Amino acid sequence: MHLGVCYYPEHWPETQWADDARRMRAIGLTRVRIGEFAWSRIEPEPGRLDWAWLDRAIATLHAAGLGIILCTPTATPPKWLVDAMPDMIAIDREGRPRRFGSRRHYCFSHAGYRREAARITRAMAERYGHHPAVVAWQTDNEYGCHDTVQSFSAAAATAFRVWLAERYGSIAALNQAWGTIFWSQTYRSFDAIDLPNLTVTEANPAHWLAFRRFASDEVVRFNQIQVDIIRALSPGRDITHNFMGFFTEFDHHAVAQSLDAVGWDSYPLGFLDSFRFSEADKLRYARQGHPDIAAFHHDLYRGCARGGRWWVLEQQPGPVNWAGHNPAPLDGMVRLWTLEALAHGAELVSYFRWRQAPFGQEQLHAGLLRPDDVPAPAYAEAARTAREIEALGPMPAAEKCVALVFAYEADWMTTIQPQGAGLSALWAAFAAYSALRQMGLNIDIVPPDAALDGYALCILPCLPVVPNQLLQQLADFDGPIVIGPRSGSRTADFAIQDGLPPGPIFPAKVTRVESLRPGLEHVGEGWCVRHWVEHLETEATAELVADDGTVACWRSGNRRYLAAWPEPELLAVVLDKAAREAGLERLDLPDGLRVRRTGSLIFAFNHANRMLVLPEEVGGRVVLGQRELAPAEVTVLAL
Amino acid sequence: MHLGVCYYPEHWPETQWADDARRMRAIGLTRVRIGEFAWSRIEPEPGRLDWAWLDRAIATLHAAGLGIILCTPTATPPKWLVDAMPDMIAIDREGRPRRFGSRRHYCFSHAGYRREAARITRAMAERYGHHPAVVAWQTDNEYGCHDTVQSFSAAAATAFRVWLAERYGSIAALNQAWGTIFWSQTYRSFDAIDLPNLTVTEANPAHWLAFRRFASDEVVRFNQIQVDIIRALSPGRDITHNFMGFFTEFDHHAVAQSLDAVGWDSYPLGFLDSFRFSEADKLRYARQGHPDIAAFHHDLYRGCARGGRWWVLEQQPGPVNWAGHNPAPLDGMVRLWTLEALAHGAELVSYFRWRQAPFGQEQLHAGLLRPDDVPAPAYAEAARTAREIEALGPMPAAEKCVALVFAYEADWMTTIQPQGAGLSALWAAFAAYSALRQMGLNIDIVPPDAALDGYALCILPCLPVVPNQLLQQLADFDGPIVIGPRSGSRTADFAIQDGLPPGPIFPAKVTRVESLRPGLEHVGEGWCVRHWVEHLETEATAELVADDGTVACWRSGNRRYLAAWPEPELLAVVLDKAAREAGLERLDLPDGLRVRRTGSLIFAFNHANRMLVLPEEVGGRVVLGQRELAPAEVTVLAL
Amino acid sequence: MHLGVCYYPEHWPETQWADDARRMRAIGLTRVRIGEFAWSRIEPEPGRLDWAWLDRAIATLHAAGLGIILCTPTATPPKWLVDAMPDMIAIDREGRPRRFGSRRHYCFSHAGYRREAARITRAMAERYGHHPAVVAWQTDNEYGCHDTVQSFSAAAATAFRVWLAERYGSIAALNQAWGTIFWSQTYRSFDAIDLPNLTVTEANPAHWLAFRRFASDEVVRFNQIQVDIIRALSPGRDITHNFMGFFTEFDHHAVAQSLDAVGWDSYPLGFLDSFRFSEADKLRYARQGHPDIAAFHHDLYRGCARGGRWWVLEQQPGPVNWAGHNPAPLDGMVRLWTLEALAHGAELVSYFRWRQAPFGQEQLHAGLLRPDDVPAPAYAEAARTAREIEALGPMPAAEKCVALVFAYEADWMTTIQPQGAGLSALWAAFAAYSALRQMGLNIDIVPPDAALDGYALCILPCLPVVPNQLLQQLADFDGPIVIGPRSGSRTADFAIQDGLPPGPIFPAKVTRVESLRPGLEHVGEGWCVRHWVEHLETEATAELVADDGTVACWRSGNRRYLAAWPEPELLAVVLDKAAREAGLERLDLPDGLRVRRTGSLIFAFNHANRMLVLPEEVGGRVVLGQRELAPAEVTVLAL
Ligand SMILES: [Zn+2]
Ligand SMILES: [Zn+2]
Ligand SMILES: [Zn+2]
Repeated sequence: MHLGVCYYPEHWPETQWADDARRMRAIGLTRVRIGEFAWSRIEPEPGRLDWAWLDRAIATLHAAGLGIILCTPTATPPKWLVDAMPDMIAIDREGRPRRFGSRRHYCFSHAGYRREAARITRAMAERYGHHPAVVAWQTDNEYGCHDTVQSFSAAAATAFRVWLAERYGSIAALNQAWGTIFWSQTYRSFDAIDLPNLTVTEANPAHWLAFRRFASDEVVRFNQIQVDIIRALSPGRDITHNFMGFFTEFDHHAVAQSLDAVGWDSYPLGFLDSFRFSEADKLRYARQGHPDIAAFHHDLYRGCARGGRWWVLEQQPGPVNWAGHNPAPLDGMVRLWTLEALAHGAELVSYFRWRQAPFGQEQLHAGLLRPDDVPAPAYAEAARTAREIEALGPMPAAEKCVALVFAYEADWMTTIQPQGAGLSALWAAFAAYSALRQMGLNIDIVPPDAALDGYALCILPCLPVVPNQLLQQLADFDGPIVIGPRSGSRTADFAIQDGLPPGPIFPAKVTRVESLRPGLEHVGEGWCVRHWVEHLETEATAELVADDGTVACWRSGNRRYLAAWPEPELLAVVLDKAAREAGLERLDLPDGLRVRRTGSLIFAFNHANRMLVLPEEVGGRVVLGQRELAPAEVTVLAL
Repeated sequence: MHLGVCYYPEHWPETQWADDARRMRAIGLTRVRIGEFAWSRIEPEPGRLDWAWLDRAIATLHAAGLGIILCTPTATPPKWLVDAMPDMIAIDREGRPRRFGSRRHYCFSHAGYRREAARITRAMAERYGHHPAVVAWQTDNEYGCHDTVQSFSAAAATAFRVWLAERYGSIAALNQAWGTIFWSQTYRSFDAIDLPNLTVTEANPAHWLAFRRFASDEVVRFNQIQVDIIRALSPGRDITHNFMGFFTEFDHHAVAQSLDAVGWDSYPLGFLDSFRFSEADKLRYARQGHPDIAAFHHDLYRGCARGGRWWVLEQQPGPVNWAGHNPAPLDGMVRLWTLEALAHGAELVSYFRWRQAPFGQEQLHAGLLRPDDVPAPAYAEAARTAREIEALGPMPAAEKCVALVFAYEADWMTTIQPQGAGLSALWAAFAAYSALRQMGLNIDIVPPDAALDGYALCILPCLPVVPNQLLQQLADFDGPIVIGPRSGSRTADFAIQDGLPPGPIFPAKVTRVESLRPGLEHVGEGWCVRHWVEHLETEATAELVADDGTVACWRSGNRRYLAAWPEPELLAVVLDKAAREAGLERLDLPDGLRVRRTGSLIFAFNHANRMLVLPEEVGGRVVLGQRELAPAEVTVLAL
Repeated sequence: MHLGVCYYPEHWPETQWADDARRMRAIGLTRVRIGEFAWSRIEPEPGRLDWAWLDRAIATLHAAGLGIILCTPTATPPKWLVDAMPDMIAIDREGRPRRFGSRRHYCFSHAGYRREAARITRAMAERYGHHPAVVAWQTDNEYGCHDTVQSFSAAAATAFRVWLAERYGSIAALNQAWGTIFWSQTYRSFDAIDLPNLTVTEANPAHWLAFRRFASDEVVRFNQIQVDIIRALSPGRDITHNFMGFFTEFDHHAVAQSLDAVGWDSYPLGFLDSFRFSEADKLRYARQGHPDIAAFHHDLYRGCARGGRWWVLEQQPGPVNWAGHNPAPLDGMVRLWTLEALAHGAELVSYFRWRQAPFGQEQLHAGLLRPDDVPAPAYAEAARTAREIEALGPMPAAEKCVALVFAYEADWMTTIQPQGAGLSALWAAFAAYSALRQMGLNIDIVPPDAALDGYALCILPCLPVVPNQLLQQLADFDGPIVIGPRSGSRTADFAIQDGLPPGPIFPAKVTRVESLRPGLEHVGEGWCVRHWVEHLETEATAELVADDGTVACWRSGNRRYLAAWPEPELLAVVLDKAAREAGLERLDLPDGLRVRRTGSLIFAFNHANRMLVLPEEVGGRVVLGQRELAPAEVTVLAL
């Protein structure tokens, strides 16, 4: 695995570059990622391209022996471009323009901006496509960050109508598919269809779903333009993009189709503070991040990558600036996160950023170096980790174990129609992932069209639309299958499945769905039904029955159907049964300990605040660390 | 009492209609409500009216013996109409258009849309006005739903100025009435007056009150146009409209003036989840709804109806889709709600809807049938209830007992100027209603211009403007009168009453008003002053005095004045005294039990989660059920 | 000290004026403030000035022996002016116009409105500038109230560009200062710079800081226009303006530069309810206000005044109308607040308002008189206080004791970049002030350019930019200096200080900053680190070390640096040490008791709900009250 760093030569005096490059290499970094937001420096005036500085920066980094990941600068078009094409900016859901002054101030559907983005991409690829230092390209930066996938601009409306016409062929077909007869929404032509924002009350869920698909496709299209240019002009280089955490606005599987390696930006502490973890977890893991945050995304994005190749393009190196509260990681966490990525199969971990910038929006975002050029704590951790990775040698591949099926549109559908406030497919997936990982199991998060052979256990935490291909895969699957609520409940156009949910995936009819406010519970033995209950008409066996008769889990053959929201305790009980049947060895891990087996190596990570001891079942020879792990410590065993 | 159902033939294959109609009749339904949102089906293109399908639908329902309530489809104008008149849509308080894509996308003040609504109403009334199957008409649907009474459009501004000129005659009179000398708000002409939204800080309360009255009048005017057309073209049919729950944006008394029967839509579980009940009540009554939700509205809308005729046009039959959490009612609750409507004097209960639609915004809203055409739980409950209603025979009328005076503009005024966060006249009325009902008393909720003779007890929970007519009524009233805070405090134009509140209604001067944050209390014996205190200068007797000397209730002759916010415990104490003086028999009902006496029948309803026993004081011969009531059970006794 | 009252003759019949004036004098008032919102009465039509009524009002007040504070009416331009210049209204951060209908509906940057404001000011000053009754002028009213300092109008954008050009000289200098190379924000000309609102994510903090400075300067410029006119036309009269509480949107030091006396509007109960006090304090002090609210502002605004002259222009006399909850003050609090202002050096306390208005937005705001012209409770308190002030005689000046340095731009910077949710310089200052006052110390809140000689102790609770002048002052300062977190951390253009914070103010480098969510704590002995931690590289002594090694306070020579957020317990410990070293006598005051020493007099104020006894250390002869103080009581001792 390579270690790298994100670097902005344009932020620093040129005199500093060579020493920066030297020190990068000195601590074992071999990759450097540059260019991300440099458009206004590359093209300070319309049409005048200033390559000189970038030529020298690349030469300097090259001379030090670093491989360069070159980014297209399209996430930050210069002010002169916005002034020339004011309608290139996106419009938010409330109808307000999203103006220049930060980043991502463009609408994916704006043809003029797509042309400009292609132009600057081509110019960069022409100049550096064959440069020996350039080993990879990153397109744009964090598509969708700051809620920028959905734009409610005139350009988006026009493009949406074209997209609808292509998808549905005739307006009659759309009316039928969406059920527009409801509330007199019938359209007479595609031209009559508006974007679904600012309606008096909620728009048709089919309308929203189509818009979400369209908006996702616009990201795919935008990215494809850059990929095509770079492929043509820079042969042999990997193309990547940096995805984000807990972010589902576009279909990452679709964007990843054209990438060589999938990248993502890992900020466990910022994510813990910003997302829906319990207050207790936010306190307990304040300096580590919830133990499953990074691993969940590693396994998710590995599953997005065509060839399984994935990178951490930005790794949190200390406190960040953008969460509500920004504590420092425990000493050792940067190393832990790096080794955890290694254990999950990353090819690269790139720290963000080399040196903390004293100006601009991220001036309180830590780097490997402090603003005064002195090493920050992560500097030494990175250096140490580089040596350890070297010592561990090439990573063996992990064997297939559990397949967790996740679809981006499942999250769109549950968000469009939560029915119970706050319930969504993404968090169902995370809960299932976390429950499995607490048993010490390896998980692959796979799309609905993935092959399932070779897995011992399969779980679909929440999949409203079950494609036929997946039905076939499941039919051929011998191991235990766990199906979560809402699965199979909807047609591709957001109507209730004919003959009632869950359709062919489980022999039952969901006759009634209830969502429950917090505090309403159906209590079982060691588990509880909360938030969501489905009533089934079925010949299947009631496997878990609450005191009041509510059935939480049904069983038929090798399949289980959860008629309740996947909550930690319930998942623990159900997945424990399924894992045993699958012949999987379930570990009894102490709170905060996580393991990952890859080939003959077992990695163990202590995310807790206290000393933990590896359970005896975890065998093997210690090749790194000890069986007693201090907080933030890592142990590697070889079988 | 008739039972009925809401039906959308346009949602289903025509081949299904006859069997649907047959089954409706088979379970005892005699009314069917159709047409509500069918405009785009009736007039698929501008001016081309397609009656054929509706002719056949009506014929089919008629043939099965069902009486039809035909709805005008004006709540959902078709897209082609919006495209032809884009400015017909309403503008929200923030200045944003409220666009097509759901429903109620029109501005009440738009002359063009009023013409179009009249045109489609006339067309329907011409075609079906004399059809023997049509027994009633519903105008539009749920006026004001989704916050649509107030529109801040140019059309509304223009109409508001005309309305003001008519009300005040001269701009000098308006300036005087509003006190525009305050903050230099003086106007030189009616043309200078804007709508009161988007002001820097709060607009003049008199300005807001005028706008609220105007907006309410616009609803009245809009409804009157349809009523006039239907009366002329469909003689002998009842005209109704379906009001909503806890909704006060327009004066329902005024709209009801032109209706033959007042309808409302009863969703006790959705209302419980959406409105300001305590978290404890939301959990305790999650599957029943607070026991007073339905009854409060029954008694409120009966009081709105000129002749006392009122209908439940939509009755919740299972989980709904629109609340934050949507649990299922207890088994039996649909029956309980139906019989409760009967006990309160309803002429009709119509379930919403016949069959759950698998598409569109309400696909998770239950019906009597599941989407797969199999009976849902409410189907059998409706059938059973139909038989029971038949068996009980015609309902005798209830005797007058307690009059609770409520005015819509009281709620506007307390909302415009809450003075203490969250306090409003509607919830004061609900608290008083609930307290009285927990004593087993029958309540009529009446407008301020109602006759009070025949009542034993009268309460005005919160009535800032007391009209002279009511003063006279109260002077003639012999029974105990309970007057809540803020009553009599304001002139019709939102100025403090000359000579200080409460004016002639009680011999006192309110010299000071305080609002208290939650936690600030003045403790009495078994009650507490919270939220609101008034200091009085009066010769009246201090009847309830807190430990610290704060007076919660003053008494003078047959009148009591509450100098504190009407809270449950305080109300229980005060209303108990008043009820005793009125010679009313107060029942000691267990938590969750409610009774309603109508003529010689006593109905009892168990809204609790546990078995309850009727108190011994409740005498009579059991004609339905038992004296021990399981949850959701109903008992009827005959004296 | 004078007592006065705010009066609106235009609200009352002219026949009442003489008796009003007579009664004002009768209870000891000598000042009356008028004219504030009277523009539409003075100029009912464009250009037609109606002075007659105001001539008579002034004559009447004059005849009674009252000195008049005459206000320019520019906070409420008439509707006809807004109609003539619609673009004079401000635009809010969301892009919405802030329309006519309340007050402060103007944009400070609108040249047309500035001309109109100058015109009406000149007209008033020409007419009354030499009137013998006029003793002072107030410009406008409560600049910035209702969030009106920042306007995002076209006029503001244009003016901002001019302001930037003047400040930075060249666009290159601005690009350099702001670090616009970050995220490709580089500008090619000043014309390209927009206002920082509605950006996709946060704008550059340097951009926001410049805008905040500009917006503040616009207030200064607006005020200066009126001051210049009045100075020229009304020689010998004081000019004042009424500032608000907990309000930092403009630099009050800068506005105060041109004033003779600084005024402010003191509403302790409204402020308690509206600002970030703990729920416990909001309940405990519901009828008194937090004991430090009024005093903090007295000492803050005295520090703003060039010559130390300051007035309370509006004093809460009872319940107000504008907070979430509006209880009445304890009996006696109006007197306490008045005497507290006296003890802190006020020259005037003016009650708001004479008589409660029965109409308009503030109809529930108490006055000295009720709407029915009968004295409200504050009337007698004012009268009694007037006699007591008379008896006490002229106030001796207070000696210097503690200097607390506060800068408005410190609050802007911490608000622009809180890094930890909710942390800001204003509340750091308030916490430090409160801690010092609980020790019985006198505090002066001074600007960063104030002279520090004569003080025994100096504290800078949070001062990101430390000017050179202050560095010099501190170098010359012998007493203990306490420096709070973030101090010295930023350049004037919001970049991290070269060589790392805190720069020359303390011999250390802040190498890392952490913000902590509530619940994360580093526990020391009797104190705790919460919310914020800084890690220092320093030779200084760790003075306070938590159990886990976290250093809360460092010491070097006479300076202490707080590496943690200034929380009450921590401040109590640190300031106690510092005060002892400074040789200051620290009192052990019971909860809710506050004292203020001025010359040979010691005032004591009981803000608690219970009887308190003055500690023995507080010596002297009782000249008012007793050593045992009932709630809301005041005692004065002479040494
Ligand atoms: Zn990035
Ligand atoms: Zn409806
Ligand atoms: Zn004021």
